[in-house]
Amino acid sequence: MTYLPQPETEQIAFANVLTALGDETRLAIIGLLARNEENPMSCGQFSGVGSKTGLSYHLSKLREAGVVHVRPEGTKRYVSIRRADLDQRFPGFLDSIIATAQHLPMPREEAQSTAD
Amino acid sequence: MTYLPQPETEQIAFANVLTALGDETRLAIIGLLARNEENPMSCGQFSGVGSKTGLSYHLSKLREAGVVHVRPEGTKRYVSIRRADLDQRFPGFLDSIIATAQHLPMPREEAQSTAD
Repeated sequence: MTYLPQPETEQIAFANVLTALGDETRLAIIGLLARNEENPMSCGQFSGVGSKTGLSYHLSKLREAGVVHVRPEGTKRYVSIRRADLDQRFPGFLDSIIATAQHLPMPREEAQSTAD
Repeated sequence: MTYLPQPETEQIAFANVLTALGDETRLAIIGLLARNEENPMSCGQFSGVGSKTGLSYHLSKLREAGVVHVRPEGTKRYVSIRRADLDQRFPGFLDSIIATAQHLPMPREEAQSTAD
């Protein structure tokens, strides 16, 4: 099984979380994940957030910072927000992010967004 | 008078705010500013957050993103959080940042932090 490194709850660093979220495409991903938090999303469900390569890049940034959990299952990967971990470490923060992220327009310049 | 550019309320971009806050030193600055929000702080009051050059760099990042207001007055500069603007644009967000920022340890590696 593919090993996808992600920090333990206590290792999640607030500055890293903020940096990972500081991107329009990644905020759009969080907005999509938040609409149906109970059900992890497969990568194919993230329509409108750019190319497969771009999505993979952005998901790795979110995963490495501890914002999302990515579970490989066969050839698919299922993504979910690490709600319990983030709420434990940074009370109120995730909800404030989601509240804004769900109202942001979808980013249009995916090429620009992945180049940073 | 020195012109210090900063975005209008409606121009503040959430991704830029998150990126500006994604740094331990800048989170420490927000934690200090939040302890006495009514009174803008002069640069000399930010003891413990590194060199004068580093502080100037970090304050410019926060100002350009729209997180803080910097008011020149003679040879001094007074810094305050843009509470009204941030609360209007991103409800609940600033308070969640402050709640965590005030409990973070002071960053020790200022040289490393300014190099990013």
